[in-house]
Amino acid sequence: MTDTADLTATEALAAIRAGRLTATDYRDACLDRIAEREGIIHAFAWFDEAGVRRTTPAEGPLAGMPIGVKDVIDTADLPSQYGSSAWAGHRPRSDAACVAAARAAGAVVMGKTVTTEFATRHPGPTANPANPKHTPGGSSSGSAAGVGAGFFPVAFGTQTAGSIIRPAAYCGVVGFKPSYGTLHRAGMKVMSESLDTIGVMARSVADCALAMGAMSGLDYGTPDAKAPRAPRLALVMGPTADQAAPETLALIERVAEACRRAGATVTPISLPAVFAAAYEAHAYVMNMESAEALGWEMAHARAQISPVLQERMDWGRSQPRARLVEGRAAFAAARAALPGAIEGFDAVLCPAAPGEAPEGLGWTGDPAFNSLWTLLHGPCVTVPAGSGPKGLPLGVQLAGRVADDAAVLGWAAWVRAAL
Amino acid sequence: MTDTADLTATEALAAIRAGRLTATDYRDACLDRIAEREGIIHAFAWFDEAGVRRTTPAEGPLAGMPIGVKDVIDTADLPSQYGSSAWAGHRPRSDAACVAAARAAGAVVMGKTVTTEFATRHPGPTANPANPKHTPGGSSSGSAAGVGAGFFPVAFGTQTAGSIIRPAAYCGVVGFKPSYGTLHRAGMKVMSESLDTIGVMARSVADCALAMGAMSGLDYGTPDAKAPRAPRLALVMGPTADQAAPETLALIERVAEACRRAGATVTPISLPAVFAAAYEAHAYVMNMESAEALGWEMAHARAQISPVLQERMDWGRSQPRARLVEGRAAFAAARAALPGAIEGFDAVLCPAAPGEAPEGLGWTGDPAFNSLWTLLHGPCVTVPAGSGPKGLPLGVQLAGRVADDAAVLGWAAWVRAAL
Repeated sequence: MTDTADLTATEALAAIRAGRLTATDYRDACLDRIAEREGIIHAFAWFDEAGVRRTTPAEGPLAGMPIGVKDVIDTADLPSQYGSSAWAGHRPRSDAACVAAARAAGAVVMGKTVTTEFATRHPGPTANPANPKHTPGGSSSGSAAGVGAGFFPVAFGTQTAGSIIRPAAYCGVVGFKPSYGTLHRAGMKVMSESLDTIGVMARSVADCALAMGAMSGLDYGTPDAKAPRAPRLALVMGPTADQAAPETLALIERVAEACRRAGATVTPISLPAVFAAAYEAHAYVMNMESAEALGWEMAHARAQISPVLQERMDWGRSQPRARLVEGRAAFAAARAALPGAIEGFDAVLCPAAPGEAPEGLGWTGDPAFNSLWTLLHGPCVTVPAGSGPKGLPLGVQLAGRVADDAAVLGWAAWVRAAL
Repeated sequence: MTDTADLTATEALAAIRAGRLTATDYRDACLDRIAEREGIIHAFAWFDEAGVRRTTPAEGPLAGMPIGVKDVIDTADLPSQYGSSAWAGHRPRSDAACVAAARAAGAVVMGKTVTTEFATRHPGPTANPANPKHTPGGSSSGSAAGVGAGFFPVAFGTQTAGSIIRPAAYCGVVGFKPSYGTLHRAGMKVMSESLDTIGVMARSVADCALAMGAMSGLDYGTPDAKAPRAPRLALVMGPTADQAAPETLALIERVAEACRRAGATVTPISLPAVFAAAYEAHAYVMNMESAEALGWEMAHARAQISPVLQERMDWGRSQPRARLVEGRAAFAAARAALPGAIEGFDAVLCPAAPGEAPEGLGWTGDPAFNSLWTLLHGPCVTVPAGSGPKGLPLGVQLAGRVADDAAVLGWAAWVRAAL
């Protein structure tokens, strides 16, 4: 029998509605798991067990559902420190819009989860629940690890390059970056206005749909429902194809084969040059916008910024401003080209990460297979798809057109079932 | 001789560089003007004279330039209360990105300027410097009135519907809403992510270019330089043409005639239906996004929200989510159609407001002639253009294509010179 802490939110909330589980027992099972494993995982930037126990969840579609909140997202009752000592002890007055939405739907905030420094590169202490000698990925490190470890069934992540999809893949969970702008960023420490997107991680595709639907009011359908047909998938290795490790090449082969066996068509396609140009512009837009966002920190707390981030922000500030304007135009051109490039396909199948989670906690891995899909502003989801040579989780990514979120979630569930 | 407090920033900084004025004397002239008129104007939400006197400006292109900061924009050394008692006494830890950029360029923050409640409708106490029985417009009420009264030569405003252009027109100053996304919104109390744009008000077009260039790193050229030719202007009354008061119809005639006399072509054009559709969608996108943004306030501080804003937020929350998705799509369609609609023209000439500033301080006027240009994401600028039947200032608006900011500022200066 599945331990209560490992249930999906969909399963647990159904058990609560059926009287087979209480919200308190559900929460306590998660708290027990935290007590057991947090000493190794370090998923939390802030954890207040007594506060969690005092919480009476609101009525709503997520009533009693534990949720982790990435620490670049403000909470009124818990410090919000953005992964930086420059913000040590910071107590916002208000909840971020997405946290307010989650709480209004009945979710119980379990704590603030570790982020890399301002959701950039410099890592926090979090370990991968599948093997604590490996990174959980980043920047949504604690959210991915906590969902993987059973600390909460759902957590908030944010993605500027690959900060939801990659850690989800590394930790063997489902990551969902919805279409850009789905959840309002008020109360988030926004770095790149053109890219930053709030999303969720969970242990099933259905949980992502449940949480996102309850918070946004959008209808994400029932991804687990039997599809009336198999999908037509475009297999896209993209401008960073040469960065796929052997286990990723084998994974994509294996997934494509399983999908074909289940009735799908899987057609390798090449993207026109406009996509590679947009990918090349990503670092300019991300770092130039982030350098603006951190103007106060760079002026007043520079010594508390990691050397790697100082270097990136200085680089961003030294670029001619035209690079940013051109970069945004390159993004817009690629966005406009996507519907044509994948015409006739239901979704894109692509790697979620170059390979397994790297060893060590000093580097959270490379977003090579994520930046393009982030700048395209459409939905991306990664589902667990077996493991690699070191026994660590692998994930495979489905991506789609802007506003095609429900369909992409449905096909992601279909792919997972086909595996 | 012009009083020092009435100099443009361009004039004053030139005088400082030439040794004819000191930054301290410049600041003191503004402080004297504030002492003289603030009791009537009420431009400030927070004013700390001793703090201003203690400030040593940074070196830079704006060194010693006084600036007003709309109180929806965070400052680390002054309360930031967003025009709401729900945020009374709030002290952010950091400056907003745009304030950090202004300070890094040498600007001296003179204080926080009055905003309507969260930059929406419910007014603050600010009066119009041309006639204190009339509204200065909103939501950037204190910034417009303060620039008009000589409290500072430049101020930050923000625009979601018409919150820069309209109050600037009412107060007889220049308002500039740059292309969407020009100044990073980190540290601003963002309401509508799709619309909110930070811009500036000043007493000359050149000052807008000076301030925006120094803060953004973009090259806004020299708007006052003699143009090599006269512009081809599209005269657009737009979907709200019937809301123009007689003084506005007369104004547009007068401005068009003056431009023609100076060599311009001024061609009335009608916009295709896609623009009216986008205009109709504005209220949905603005209020639905704002209702998300205020999720915490509506849950925890509802009694401190004005009845009019409660009503609007409840309305926003009660709309089907599809309206928001459709509204954003309508915006995108209009944006895509603009270059074609004004092909062959250098800029659009249009009203900045329905008429003169309404009497009384209970209503800041209607953004009927602003919402369309805000959602189109291109640059808009209003320049003073005489006065109306009650002797209050009128302004006329120039608008243009995304990223055409320097050109539109140049044509705005040309139009002002032609009047």
